[in-house]
Amino acid sequence: MTSPTHWLLVALALIASLAPTGATAADWQALPNQAPAPADNPTTPAKIELGKMLYFDPRLSSTGTVSCFSCHNVMEGGDDHRPTSIGVHGQLGGRNSPTVWNAAFHSVQFWDGRAPSLEAQAKGPIVNPIEMGMPKLDLAVDRIRRISGYAPAFERAFGKGVKIDEDSIAKAIAAYERTLITPNSPYDRFVKGDKAALTAQQQRGMQAFASIGCTACHSGANFSGPALPPGTGFFMKFPTYLDNPYVARYHLLDDGGKAVQTGKSEDQNLWRVPTLRNLAFTAPYFHNGLVKSLPEAVRVMAKTQLDKSPTDADVADIVAFLDALSGEFPQQTMPRLPPTPGDMLE
Amino acid sequence: MTSPTHWLLVALALIASLAPTGATAADWQALPNQAPAPADNPTTPAKIELGKMLYFDPRLSSTGTVSCFSCHNVMEGGDDHRPTSIGVHGQLGGRNSPTVWNAAFHSVQFWDGRAPSLEAQAKGPIVNPIEMGMPKLDLAVDRIRRISGYAPAFERAFGKGVKIDEDSIAKAIAAYERTLITPNSPYDRFVKGDKAALTAQQQRGMQAFASIGCTACHSGANFSGPALPPGTGFFMKFPTYLDNPYVARYHLLDDGGKAVQTGKSEDQNLWRVPTLRNLAFTAPYFHNGLVKSLPEAVRVMAKTQLDKSPTDADVADIVAFLDALSGEFPQQTMPRLPPTPGDMLE
Repeated sequence: MTSPTHWLLVALALIASLAPTGATAADWQALPNQAPAPADNPTTPAKIELGKMLYFDPRLSSTGTVSCFSCHNVMEGGDDHRPTSIGVHGQLGGRNSPTVWNAAFHSVQFWDGRAPSLEAQAKGPIVNPIEMGMPKLDLAVDRIRRISGYAPAFERAFGKGVKIDEDSIAKAIAAYERTLITPNSPYDRFVKGDKAALTAQQQRGMQAFASIGCTACHSGANFSGPALPPGTGFFMKFPTYLDNPYVARYHLLDDGGKAVQTGKSEDQNLWRVPTLRNLAFTAPYFHNGLVKSLPEAVRVMAKTQLDKSPTDADVADIVAFLDALSGEFPQQTMPRLPPTPGDMLE
Repeated sequence: MTSPTHWLLVALALIASLAPTGATAADWQALPNQAPAPADNPTTPAKIELGKMLYFDPRLSSTGTVSCFSCHNVMEGGDDHRPTSIGVHGQLGGRNSPTVWNAAFHSVQFWDGRAPSLEAQAKGPIVNPIEMGMPKLDLAVDRIRRISGYAPAFERAFGKGVKIDEDSIAKAIAAYERTLITPNSPYDRFVKGDKAALTAQQQRGMQAFASIGCTACHSGANFSGPALPPGTGFFMKFPTYLDNPYVARYHLLDDGGKAVQTGKSEDQNLWRVPTLRNLAFTAPYFHNGLVKSLPEAVRVMAKTQLDKSPTDADVADIVAFLDALSGEFPQQTMPRLPPTPGDMLE
């Protein structure tokens, strides 16, 4: 998962973040209209439709009450507006639900980047005891198999003779998630040449965002770092600067980030650089959801990552720019889920 | 709520249910293509759209995790496929979630009929401590008011100067629910003249359904009794016949039904007669969700309500007929919910 290239990129990003303000020639990129898909899981209409059914199906959870949609609300910001999510039996999760919108443009998934693909990510919450609470993936697969109405949808998606298993389930969900992208934000229209798409304040914010150094990490079309091969990951240490009141106030060192997963000291407080798109829809912020407003999030990041204290005017300008990263959410039809056969309950 | 007319109807239904089998000339009615709406809450497109937003909005619950949709899944049978539902903090409710599909054709709402309208019903779960857990309706109203993106939707639905309050919220949700109807089932097409719409077995089941006496209560277009003025209610005692193993096996006397609400002994084990439409989508069955399969539900009802023991062939025919009551679920677009402003979280 962690390649030498990755560490080189982290080092380069760190160097860039320490460079004098204004020195960064930002490479502004618009969001593509389609998300890339792996060769072994092309995005097809039938697979998208099946994936949407599964994404919305709470029967993938032990109680039958929690679906992907529960914590990643695609009718809104793709998260749940809570500091941390609530799974089966009212249990409270440990990290803020990351948005599913534009997740397809991340090279790794989860806050700590532990999943190398959307396919791998989709399997995680199902068997997380706090989230969807299934003791084993096999039990989730068994449920989907026993809901006989799913069989035709799997056949349409994968062809006759398809095996309903954890891989076909995850592939379908991932295919659906690759359609959850939000192009054509004011920012995207601006960088494509529509100079009226951003207000004067947003344009000032765009300049401040670059000159302060945010673009060192939040670069690329998704503002989550450079486009990297699937599974690579673009990570940064957060917090980097510790001599400020935010670290204690927002408990920024409490969660070890990537190190919790890997057990390696060099991964301590390392986090995947998250997208900045649609932030207006995803309060509260950060991995622990303890920062409630976007202006405060900007101040915290400037101080802890760049040792900068932007003026109130700069913060307002940057927030205005970040608001311009909210794109067009596709209009979606609701899926129709097949019924639970009565004899399945016995 | 309880009019003399109501009692007359209960008495008449009881008499009819005791009449000799085959004597009932069933009055087969198709489901209308539109649900009736009260004079003070006409169903308009803008109100439907607002109501759909609110129906899907978990921020109406204390934890921000439970919406109307959570227990009344309109992507499926309008319920949650659980014996009883799970609300905030993982709490287990006491009764099976009734389907929202075609609820508009009931003259009262809830299993015990305690709400005289969809508008009144919509307010109940929000402040039920087990369901959506809001301490007061005012707090739910306050949340919706503070989500500034809702204001334009309320203006479109109710006009300029609209007050966002519990009544406008409930009216919008009810207006949306009046669109949740499933006409054009095979049964509906059959009674409208398409004699090929039902199989031979389904037609036998239709006759058995009537001759055994099910139509005494499950009459009318919605199979939930006669169309009555809003707030009237059509109730029956369940179980009526106690000398059978089902009463104990399925704990049919444990819940007092309407009497729990009214405290009146004459309401003991009185229940609203529920619709039989889309039963294939709403297992498990009855107010406590303890009967898992439709054939067993048919046997239990025949015995406890009519003191009949239909043959296995009759049961299979009746189930085939009941399957023919599953109608067309309208294709729906997902609503877009306005974001939670960051300063609302502070």
